[in-house]
Amino acid sequence: MDKEELERGALQNEKEKQEEEEEEQVVNPWEVSAKEGGKIDYDKLIEKFGCQRLNQSLIDRVEHLTSRRAHVFLRRGAFFAHRDFNEILDAYERGEKFYLYTGRGPSSEALHLGHLIPFMFTQYLQEAFKVPLVIQLTDDEKFLWKNLTVEESRRLARENAKDIIACGFDIRRTFIFSDFDYVGGAFYRNMIEISKRVTCNQIVGIFGFVGEDHIGKYSFPPVQAAPSFPSSFPHLFSGKDNLRCLIPCAIDQDPYFRMTRDVAPRIGHHKPALIESLFFPALQGETGKMSASDPNSAIYVTDSEKDIKNKINRYAFSGGQDSIEKHRQLGANLEVDIPIKYLGFFLEDDAELEHIKKEYGAGRMLTGEVKQRLIEVLTKLVERHRRARAAVTDEMVDAFMAVRPLPNMFN
Amino acid sequence: MDKEELERGALQNEKEKQEEEEEEQVVNPWEVSAKEGGKIDYDKLIEKFGCQRLNQSLIDRVEHLTSRRAHVFLRRGAFFAHRDFNEILDAYERGEKFYLYTGRGPSSEALHLGHLIPFMFTQYLQEAFKVPLVIQLTDDEKFLWKNLTVEESRRLARENAKDIIACGFDIRRTFIFSDFDYVGGAFYRNMIEISKRVTCNQIVGIFGFVGEDHIGKYSFPPVQAAPSFPSSFPHLFSGKDNLRCLIPCAIDQDPYFRMTRDVAPRIGHHKPALIESLFFPALQGETGKMSASDPNSAIYVTDSEKDIKNKINRYAFSGGQDSIEKHRQLGANLEVDIPIKYLGFFLEDDAELEHIKKEYGAGRMLTGEVKQRLIEVLTKLVERHRRARAAVTDEMVDAFMAVRPLPNMFN
Repeated sequence: MDKEELERGALQNEKEKQEEEEEEQVVNPWEVSAKEGGKIDYDKLIEKFGCQRLNQSLIDRVEHLTSRRAHVFLRRGAFFAHRDFNEILDAYERGEKFYLYTGRGPSSEALHLGHLIPFMFTQYLQEAFKVPLVIQLTDDEKFLWKNLTVEESRRLARENAKDIIACGFDIRRTFIFSDFDYVGGAFYRNMIEISKRVTCNQIVGIFGFVGEDHIGKYSFPPVQAAPSFPSSFPHLFSGKDNLRCLIPCAIDQDPYFRMTRDVAPRIGHHKPALIESLFFPALQGETGKMSASDPNSAIYVTDSEKDIKNKINRYAFSGGQDSIEKHRQLGANLEVDIPIKYLGFFLEDDAELEHIKKEYGAGRMLTGEVKQRLIEVLTKLVERHRRARAAVTDEMVDAFMAVRPLPNMFN
Repeated sequence: MDKEELERGALQNEKEKQEEEEEEQVVNPWEVSAKEGGKIDYDKLIEKFGCQRLNQSLIDRVEHLTSRRAHVFLRRGAFFAHRDFNEILDAYERGEKFYLYTGRGPSSEALHLGHLIPFMFTQYLQEAFKVPLVIQLTDDEKFLWKNLTVEESRRLARENAKDIIACGFDIRRTFIFSDFDYVGGAFYRNMIEISKRVTCNQIVGIFGFVGEDHIGKYSFPPVQAAPSFPSSFPHLFSGKDNLRCLIPCAIDQDPYFRMTRDVAPRIGHHKPALIESLFFPALQGETGKMSASDPNSAIYVTDSEKDIKNKINRYAFSGGQDSIEKHRQLGANLEVDIPIKYLGFFLEDDAELEHIKKEYGAGRMLTGEVKQRLIEVLTKLVERHRRARAAVTDEMVDAFMAVRPLPNMFN
């Protein structure tokens, strides 16, 4: 069996696998939960999904090809898995360009830190590789899955676009679009090409839909698949049908792109490559990803300094010991400590992080001190984001979302 | 139970009904076949689908409201069933306008006479009521169901548009669109509004799809439903969200619009009204509708005078008797006679038709004479269509298909 057949097989066996693991962890685009009382088992996920670990030699290649230090999310394994990322690097090394595709389902007004991660990373990739980027706002998906009106979903898409723009994307290389506005023409034709090649049984196997689910759910996956193909963007990539696509995303989005990769060669396209992140853990601990429905599970980009301080001090799960004496003696359990996890994502200074881990793990540093450092780091991050977002005007949103050619996208 | 509940119930019981009638006639958008050896039972169809007979008093009202004789397809019962057509007439009488919506799945280059019937009738309705019309070319549907490329489907849509334009539509009141080109924006938003309100179970019940069918089939019905709502055409009906829609179509399209009517009030729209035709029978007899796949079952608009003569003489099923003697004695069985059926559709002169039926039924006229008259009528019709189609330029197609306001559409 070659790789394609393997992927096809994976699609067909999905349902069985899902049933087997029913009592275990659940990871799909709408639900992420660990096995009762445990953490997400990412090794198992890689095995189940059939993607690859992102190893050090790939990170070294990225640094070599971009002539700069790898992003902290790469160095510290936040982006930990991939599909064909090596092929993207091979092609780039040969002088071939690629484009980036990422997105967001605009279901809430304010983003939390977990939402920022793919965008911060994608911004780095865009800057480091000097490549164009399309950002899909799946307002149709959120309308279909949530109790929102079409107009409310579209409004949230525009609001979220401001947060996304605030991450520093280059307007000469970036096209942001809402499905409710952009679906049509070449994009719709690709949706239909994809829809013709995925059976209802496969969709049920991949996403677990049931007969009582509305058909909007069944028809959505091709909408998320279509941006993987350059021909969905004739104003950007006309005549560049061979351009490869790299998708940075959290690993819960993998099902969409397994489906997409199965279809791609059958409609004459490259399979999109993926680079996939861990979930950013909830304050309460690493059993899932942050939840938009529990405001105390996450730090929002709209939280004040006081909110951040309170949430970290009250809710951030600590790996420190119950008493100072015991802590001095045993040290903190870094494996479950949320402040350490968060610092791993957002503290840029490798030496300082190592120092904190060493001191905290040995019991010489207390939870309160680590939390204090985290509060500083996050306050600074959130403050920077808030200033950047405040500077994003409606005109800038219009400019990023205009259907227009990007003549300098590869320069 | 009010009417809406009845329609909902009808949707839910669809599957059972379909199973019950499995050995009987099958009528859905992709298959029309009578019970073994029989004819389509239209009374049973009306009962099963839950639509109404179009009675003489409605025809009288049409003549009164339009101040002209009713179209031959109305007078002779070719359009024989309806849903809420009376409400359209009530509203029209009060001075409210409506719009017409019809369409075609462009699966073949040349249309046959059966394809022309809804367009000839719609042209009459447009002219008589002076109302705007949208014509959907479902090139996406044909791509999904047939072995065609996207480009070939789009090409056929444009070719078929020429035949449609040749039926005499008024460019000031008519917008023709291809799904592959027009789906998007407000139209896509309505598709998604509809998709959210139809479950997979319902779609399976209505259309009989199975798990091995691709999801393109499951997602298509909302595409055919969306034109029933004026908000799908902001360039035409902006601010006229209350405009009623009347859909002339063959009765095999009823399942789409049962679904649409079930959804309509739940998304704040009028239910579309329908006026539904019999199937135009195949030359071989009235067991189904003409088939595009058997060229000898139909008269095409591209057939030459010689083709028409050969096909009628060789294939048109005759209700005449085996020998002249027997025929003179017993007369023809008009119930099964195809030339008489065809003349019923296309011979305008009521008196002449009555005369032929009387003479033929009494054995005083022979099959050959009736066929000769039919050959004349069809040759003239096809010749007129061919001349009209030859006059349709690509610029005219572009003009009819341009997304543009129609300021004089109600004048």
